[in-house]
Amino acid sequence: MITRLSTLLLRTLREDPADAEVPSHKLLVRAGYIRRVAPGIYSWLPLGLRVLRNIEAVVRHEMDVIGGQEIQFPALLPREPYQKTGRWTEYGANLFRLHDRKGGDYLLGPTHEELFTLTVKGELSSYKDYPVILYQVQAKYRDEERPRAGILRGREFLMKDSYSFDLSDEGLAQSYQAHREAYIKIFDRLGVRYVIVSAHSGAMGGSRSEEFLAEAETGEDTFVRSTESSYAANVEAVITPAPPELPIDALAPARVLHTPDTPTIDTLVDHLNRAGLGRTFSAADTLKNVMVKTRQPGAAHWELLGVGLPGDREVDMKRLAASLAPAEVALLEDPDFTAHPFLVKGYIGPGALARNGVRYLVDPRVVPGTAWATGADRPDHHVVGLVCGRDFTAAGTIEAAQVRPGDRSPDGAGTLVVARGIEIGHIFQLGRKYTDAFGLDALGPDGKPIRITMGSYGIGISRLLGVIAEQSHDARGLIWPREIAPAEVHLVVAGKDDAVVAAGERLATELDAAGLRVILDDRSATPGVKFADAELIGVPTILVVGRGLACGVVEVKDRLSGERTEIPVDGVVAHVQELCRK
Amino acid sequence: MITRLSTLLLRTLREDPADAEVPSHKLLVRAGYIRRVAPGIYSWLPLGLRVLRNIEAVVRHEMDVIGGQEIQFPALLPREPYQKTGRWTEYGANLFRLHDRKGGDYLLGPTHEELFTLTVKGELSSYKDYPVILYQVQAKYRDEERPRAGILRGREFLMKDSYSFDLSDEGLAQSYQAHREAYIKIFDRLGVRYVIVSAHSGAMGGSRSEEFLAEAETGEDTFVRSTESSYAANVEAVITPAPPELPIDALAPARVLHTPDTPTIDTLVDHLNRAGLGRTFSAADTLKNVMVKTRQPGAAHWELLGVGLPGDREVDMKRLAASLAPAEVALLEDPDFTAHPFLVKGYIGPGALARNGVRYLVDPRVVPGTAWATGADRPDHHVVGLVCGRDFTAAGTIEAAQVRPGDRSPDGAGTLVVARGIEIGHIFQLGRKYTDAFGLDALGPDGKPIRITMGSYGIGISRLLGVIAEQSHDARGLIWPREIAPAEVHLVVAGKDDAVVAAGERLATELDAAGLRVILDDRSATPGVKFADAELIGVPTILVVGRGLACGVVEVKDRLSGERTEIPVDGVVAHVQELCRK
Repeated sequence: MITRLSTLLLRTLREDPADAEVPSHKLLVRAGYIRRVAPGIYSWLPLGLRVLRNIEAVVRHEMDVIGGQEIQFPALLPREPYQKTGRWTEYGANLFRLHDRKGGDYLLGPTHEELFTLTVKGELSSYKDYPVILYQVQAKYRDEERPRAGILRGREFLMKDSYSFDLSDEGLAQSYQAHREAYIKIFDRLGVRYVIVSAHSGAMGGSRSEEFLAEAETGEDTFVRSTESSYAANVEAVITPAPPELPIDALAPARVLHTPDTPTIDTLVDHLNRAGLGRTFSAADTLKNVMVKTRQPGAAHWELLGVGLPGDREVDMKRLAASLAPAEVALLEDPDFTAHPFLVKGYIGPGALARNGVRYLVDPRVVPGTAWATGADRPDHHVVGLVCGRDFTAAGTIEAAQVRPGDRSPDGAGTLVVARGIEIGHIFQLGRKYTDAFGLDALGPDGKPIRITMGSYGIGISRLLGVIAEQSHDARGLIWPREIAPAEVHLVVAGKDDAVVAAGERLATELDAAGLRVILDDRSATPGVKFADAELIGVPTILVVGRGLACGVVEVKDRLSGERTEIPVDGVVAHVQELCRK
Repeated sequence: MITRLSTLLLRTLREDPADAEVPSHKLLVRAGYIRRVAPGIYSWLPLGLRVLRNIEAVVRHEMDVIGGQEIQFPALLPREPYQKTGRWTEYGANLFRLHDRKGGDYLLGPTHEELFTLTVKGELSSYKDYPVILYQVQAKYRDEERPRAGILRGREFLMKDSYSFDLSDEGLAQSYQAHREAYIKIFDRLGVRYVIVSAHSGAMGGSRSEEFLAEAETGEDTFVRSTESSYAANVEAVITPAPPELPIDALAPARVLHTPDTPTIDTLVDHLNRAGLGRTFSAADTLKNVMVKTRQPGAAHWELLGVGLPGDREVDMKRLAASLAPAEVALLEDPDFTAHPFLVKGYIGPGALARNGVRYLVDPRVVPGTAWATGADRPDHHVVGLVCGRDFTAAGTIEAAQVRPGDRSPDGAGTLVVARGIEIGHIFQLGRKYTDAFGLDALGPDGKPIRITMGSYGIGISRLLGVIAEQSHDARGLIWPREIAPAEVHLVVAGKDDAVVAAGERLATELDAAGLRVILDDRSATPGVKFADAELIGVPTILVVGRGLACGVVEVKDRLSGERTEIPVDGVVAHVQELCRK
């Protein structure tokens, strides 16, 4: 069917919308693809819906190839399954909750692990029924605190979520790998520039998790990558290389110094360097002890935790939170200090923590044999030459320090640089969290139950549309990859002569008959308006039927390269077909 | 792609689910198409989702043919537009309402008139942009008081809703007619047995509205149709044929009678027939005056209304409500009678209503010249021979009396019979209700604004799937029309011999290569189990590869007729292709 701009619900805008900051948002609104209904909630106009459906089709196809079976759950869900796994409360304010007319608790599904697990439990019983991969493409809901960037971070968004169910860890690894390869195919087909980053530190228990991050300056996710290798990781997943341990025997004993007015690292370093101690100190030689409190899920009380790290590094709260998950973490506040007078603000050292039974974790750089200047647990006093493994020990290490450009790459090759991206996919070996919660077993060949292990895998389909727009545009408008473009060819009728109009109609009909998806600009607007709209809309091939017709030619313009060619009218259909085959 | 039952997420049930009452619900659960998640909220398993998508495709195609443009609104909507049209409150408990994290009011869309109107207002401006038809296929939400019958009346359901926007009433009539014809095509293609019924009485202001009702004994909607003509209507839409007016001159004057202990019609008729009045009375000769109160939308106070109707008819509250809409209506309660002492319960007549300025509407049978026995507004007293047009008048007529089988058909041909159905489609000339609310005008050729007029049109897609199952099944299972069946052919491998299994695989591959959608039952189950599942699942053509293979034949069974044919293995693909072309 030919899409005629004379009747299409389309109003293009010359000006950027006032509320838009990133290019994809500006262009998708200007080109008439999306419209805002509420914060983070958008309507899809005809052209936008087409691109969305085209992306869906690519995702569905690759899911089907790996044996995924499509099902569909409701978006409106009862509380019980989410209560059972704790997510009813864990999701906090991000969950849209509501009551039905009888007062029952419901939610709008953010993801559907619970429902998938319960369904598999209801339908499958024998080990012969496994493995199975199920997926759905569905509107998801998250009440984001700061919805932003149009459809890049919405509150109602379209997602493909799939789940694998396997009898063994080896099976899970295979299902994970199958998804990983399918995701690579999907993003490659869609022409997205992306990296695959490790998403979890080993501290999480070793279950594998990777994120697909589209490169975008406007992205919210920060990741690092090596200057020399293919290493890339979420900042939360960076594992700090530990230096070698040092011999302790020959080290001088620790000394407590009077260090008046040195509550900060800078003031302390200044003081030490003026104290005639026979060496120079830098912030990296000091041990900063940051006090936080943690609370396990469901626990009533918070527990104190000391985090020791070199004084030249700040604590990265996101890394700290990821290391401590699923426990909550918060910085101490004044009442906490009042309640624990042994914590001398600005002068906290490992000593008081040990004497008062406070859990203490240190940065991986704090290895046995390293000597530190740190708090002496008395106002205006510090200790120098405090040796890890001799004068203090920690309960373990923790990834909490900020990662900086120039840090050594964890794989030993090169140093790290920081980049920004947008998460477009996530694959995750969930393991048995949900199957334990619901008791999902298969009956094994020996009659004994086998606890199923799960993977979960998501692609943000509506976000992906925004990401492609973010990566593929120029000053004049969008530039769609052919496979997902709202049409394959955009035919501009540049002129009002009967002959030109008739030639445009004829050519559109021929292209349509050849199975090509055609937009025909048959409006009464000027050629200039039509050219501008064609560039804005971003169909990969633009045909112009106009002045050239007198010489029997049509102009073919490649939207991406800007290259123009003249093709004899008779050869246009074959030429465009050839372009589409590439 | 071949669908293998050995890996498909499918568990068929031999027993009906305990909560299912209607055949479609029982069979869709037993055949593994749907699963209940909460009251009126269902999951779609693989086979069910396929049929749903196939129905969607038919609906989309016919909408595209009439020039419909598909767009998609969010399901999660802000309150404001619905507040503006009054539907935020009018929808009452049927609306799912919720708050976001900032306390903002949101709802889950039941229909999207407001959003469509606002979108058209935002995108279109000139009369040249009209007419336009927009549609979406989307999950809709209604918090039904009594969700029932599986997907026939759900709380989350899939709906196609479309809206037409026209410059004139004539344009609206054309858009309405285009939808009417598209709906006929859709339901005919889907093989649904249905009637089209008038859905509104003329009292509503003449805007046209029709419902497509699928015939089903289990249906919730009651409609009537003529024994002799094609007339069919919602009970609410039946217009009572008025008898001719009668001459008044020769009629005897009204007489007030002492009628002790006659508060009901029956006791009154008994009394009159024993009073020696020289004639016989029946209930149809009495005028019953039913007192109700009405309240206009947004009004603070209720107003009294008297409804006069022949004593042999009850008031049908749904008909009364439809006649008075959008005003609310309720029966009087004791405090109302106390507040209005001129209302003498059991003896109310038109006289007291007229003297006290109470609005009085009568059944269309109460025409000038008819004489009635009715209340005399005093305890234990009635009046006989009270003549309409002489002794009392009414402010108008109202359709409020129950419709009974045997009533004359409004079109004059035959009498009415009552039937039951399920609403599968609704087309409605909305007019300017929403365009007035939002001020949707087009700029006319003369520079003056033209207020747009709207139609709204809906098809319950998920319900339609249930309706087709309800109309097309037998004791053994579902029987799908070919176009929407989960596959075109269901191939049963009946036997475990290598030759049989190999032949089944080969045939499935050939059918798949020929572009046919194939279910292959490659499980290790017995032939009996496989046959039973094939009948339950309901694919129109069942192939059995088994014993016949020794003679080079495959059995082809038609699911609907039960007819079996033996076809040479080599000819099976061509044979099935031929069946699919029919």
